[in-house]
Formats: sequence, structure tokens, C-alpha cells
Amino acid sequence: MALLLDQQFAPLTDTNEIATKTFLESVSHLPHFFDCLGSKVFAPIKADINGNITKIKAVYDSDPVKYETLQQILFIEKSIYGSEWPKVGATLALMWLKRGLRFIQILLQSLVDGEKDEDNPNLIRINITKAYEQALKRYHGWIVQKVFQAAQYAAPCRSDFLKALSKDQEVAEEECLTKVCQFLINFTATVDAIYEMYSVMNAELDYLV
Amino acid sequence: MALLLDQQFAPLTDTNEIATKTFLESVSHLPHFFDCLGSKVFAPIKADINGNITKIKAVYDSDPVKYETLQQILFIEKSIYGSEWPKVGATLALMWLKRGLRFIQILLQSLVDGEKDEDNPNLIRINITKAYEQALKRYHGWIVQKVFQAAQYAAPCRSDFLKALSKDQEVAEEECLTKVCQFLINFTATVDAIYEMYSVMNAELDYLV
Ligand SMILES: CCCCCCCCCCCCC/C=C/[C@@H](O)[C@H](CO[C@@H]1O[C@H](CO)[C@H](O)[C@H](OS(=O)(=O)O)[C@H]1O)NC(=O)CCCCCCCCCCC
Ligand SMILES: CCCCCCCCCCCCC/C=C/[C@@H](O)[C@H](CO[C@@H]1O[C@H](CO)[C@H](O)[C@H](OS(=O)(=O)O)[C@H]1O)NC(=O)CCCCCCCCCCC
Repeated sequence: MALLLDQQFAPLTDTNEIATKTFLESVSHLPHFFDCLGSKVFAPIKADINGNITKIKAVYDSDPVKYETLQQILFIEKSIYGSEWPKVGATLALMWLKRGLRFIQILLQSLVDGEKDEDNPNLIRINITKAYEQALKRYHGWIVQKVFQAAQYAAPCRSDFLKALSKDQEVAEEECLTKVCQFLINFTATVDAIYEMYSVMNAELDYLV
Repeated sequence: MALLLDQQFAPLTDTNEIATKTFLESVSHLPHFFDCLGSKVFAPIKADINGNITKIKAVYDSDPVKYETLQQILFIEKSIYGSEWPKVGATLALMWLKRGLRFIQILLQSLVDGEKDEDNPNLIRINITKAYEQALKRYHGWIVQKVFQAAQYAAPCRSDFLKALSKDQEVAEEECLTKVCQFLINFTATVDAIYEMYSVMNAELDYLV
């Protein structure tokens, strides 16, 4: 599991504050996740997520002390932008990024849990669909939903996907899943904390794209 | 027609040679064409075409004298890359770019020619489908074709599209179409010449994406 485990997310602190710098480092390798899906069809998704990360990083870099935690970013941007907020700045970028992260988290969790289409045990479409429905579908208008329906057929089969996650290393499927499971601990906690923050700050929007 | 006519393509010379610099200048504004379609769904297409242009520009900038014409680029890359060619370098970028240009050309020509779905005279889906079928479909596997089928519903209606092409200027529909017609003269000749060059040089590929 070279790919994912090389950038384990940091454990949460007592306060659930997330250090922006550490978060950006961990998350910067996730766009490669979409390379594991093995088709150029997913390039626009990778680009969208990369765009989110770049935007958050630019805000952080503009004043690393002021924007030390993700919480501080939301607080400060709320005061800067007034009524434009939260559909603006790093707040907007993180709003969408967290949905992509949730998609990845649910997909991996579903694989670890062994959820399978019994008729097609080597396909991951059922896992992808679950992740899409829970993380993204409600934010997509019908056209993008149709695009998703078409694009999911470009997903690799289960064994190829696990192999891609393990990168060049020869790893047994069991072992790979154990490492995914390990990875999910801090990753899920982080994603949950971000969602919690958007809820507490009343920063979540549900407009459609 | 601020948008398109501001960058009329140059007329062809007797030899059908196309100056790289002039071509890159004219073509650099075309990605905005996809903004006229008015939906973020088309962002990946714009990005793909921008990528093609950037790649050709990088080759040109590396030695503007050596790569003075598009013909020279193909000749020189053929000798540099050997059996890798033509699926490489600016040759590959221009191979795909010309298909995007052909798409635009056929779509605009079809509008100028007044081709309409009589049941939905204010939709341009019929024109978009024609352009797609003639310029791109045969290079797309079934998944990308399905994505196209979904994405076409994001196209604007005819009147909004013509308004977008005219940009901020208040222009009557007739006048706009006259200007499109004017624009198409050198544009079509240029696109034809590039296709001719790929044919003569045996540089065309028909692999699917
Ligand atoms: C030949 C014909 C071709 C036609 C071309 C059709 C192309 C179809 C369009 C594809 C859509 C690609 C996905 C991107 C969708 C994006 O539109 C949304 C919203 O994107 C957000 O929008 C904001 C403004 O509203 C800001 O700009 C955000 O940017 S900001 O940083 O500037 O603030 C930006 O991320 N992101 C999303 O929905 C997030 C997507 C995450 C995806 C997660 C995985 C899904 C996996 C699916 C596997 C099967
Ligand atoms: C939430 C779920 C979301 C799921 C996300 C799904 C996203 C779906 C994928 C969308 C595809 C976007 C269009 C891009 C397609 C591209 O794959 C192709 C080939 O692209 C070429 O590939 C080469 C290698 O083979 C080089 O990399 C070229 O790059 S190089 O410069 O490096 O050499 C590159 O242009 N270009 C194309 O097909 C060209 C497309 C031109 C389009 C013209 C207009 C069509 C208008 C349609 C209007 C309705």
C-alpha cells in the first residue's frame, strides 16, 4: 500500500482542530487515487480536487500563522467575506474537497467491509455507486448524474484496483485490505471532523452543479 | 461577434503552409468558445484543448525558427521521434486539437446553414450532434460517447448561444450569423489544410479514448 499509507493522516487532537499544513501535506497525494481508477475519464475529477487543494494552499501560504488550522480559515474568511461567505475562498474549496474525500472514504470502507455484487464479485461498481450516492449525488444536477452513470463503467475491476493501490509492491489482497483499514482510521476521523466543523459553523451549502 | 471575429484566422498562402506563431495566436482564444456553451460541464473540454495549445506552444518556443510552420513541426518531430511518432509531442497535440477545431467549425457552419430541429427550433442539440458525429465520435470509446450524450443536454439554446458569441455587444441574430459566416472562411480553410497535412504526412491515428 505504498500509495495511500505513505501519507497516513495525523490523528486528531482533543479539540478536533486540524493543522492546515499537515492536512495539506496528507491530502496532496490523494489526487493520485484517481489514477488508480486507471482511466483518463477520471482526469477532470483529479483536476477539480487538485484545484481545491491549490486554492486552500494559496490561502494558507498567504499567512501561515493566521491560517494555522482549518477552523481558523473558516472563522477568518467568514469575517472577511460577509454575506458572500461560505460560497467563496478556501471555505468553498474545502466544502467540495471534503465531498471528494468522503467519496474516497466510503468507497474504501465498502471494499474493506467486503460489500460485493454477488453476480459480479470482481466489479467495484456497487462500491462506487454507494460512495457516489452518499457523498456527491445530492449536489449534482441530472446532467452530471448522467455523466457519472456513464463514467462509472470506466472503473477498474476489484483486483486491478487493489493492485493499483498497492502500487509496485507485490501484496496479497488480504494484506492490502488490512492496510486500507489502517489508513481509514485517521482519514475517516479527519473527514468527520471537517464535516462537523461545516455543520457547527453553518458553512454547508447544498446548491447543485 | 467580439469573441470570434477579434481573432480572424489568417488567409492561407499558396503553399498552404501555416505559420505556427500566427496560428497559435488565432487559436488561443478559441477555448473561450466553450464558455459560450455556458456550463461548467464543458470545463474538461476547454482544459483538454488548452493543453493541446500549451504543448504546441512549448515546442514552438523551444526554437521559433526551426518550428516556424506547422508543417515543419511534423517533419522535424517525425525525424526526432522515429517509431514513437506520430503519437507524441506537438504532432499528437495538433492531431487532437484539429478535431476540436473541426467540431467548432461544423457546429458553426450548421448554424449558419440554418439546420434546425423543426420541433425544437431554439435548440442546438441537432447541430452539436452533427458536429460531434463528424469530428469526434469515431475516436471515442463507448464510455466517452455516453458522457457526450449526457453532456449535450447542458448546451444552451440557440438564442443564448448566439448572444454569447456576440459577447457584450447587442447584435441582431442575422448580423451575428453573417459574422460567423465571415469567420468561417479562413477558419475552415485552415482546418482543412491541417487535415490535409496529416493525411499527406500519414500522421493520422484512429485509436480510441
Ligand atoms: C466529448 C464530450 C465530453 C463532454 C465533457 C463532459 C464532462 C463532464 C463533467 C465532469 C464533471 C467533473 C467533476 C467536477 C465537478 C464539479 O463541477 C463539482 C463542483 O466543483 C466545485 O465548484 C465550485 C463552484 O461551484 C468551485 O469552483 C470549486 O472549486 S474551488 O476550489 O475553486 O472552490 C469546485 O471544486 N465538483 C465535484 O462534484 C467534486 C467531484 C469529486 C469527485 C469524486 C469522485 C467521483 C468518482 C466517480 C467515479 C465514477
Ligand atoms: C461525478 C462524475 C464525473 C465523472 C467524470 C467524467 C468525465 C468524463 C470525461 C470527459 C472527457 C473530456 C474530453 C476530453 C477527452 C480526451 O480524452 C480526448 C483525447 O485527449 C488527448 O489524448 C492524447 C493522448 O491520447 C493526449 O493526451 C492529448 O493531449 S496532448 O496535448 O498532451 O497531446 C489529448 O488532447 N480529447 C478529445 O476528445 C478532444 C475533445 C474536444 C471536444 C470538442 C467539443 C465536444 C463538445 C461536446 C458538447 C456536448
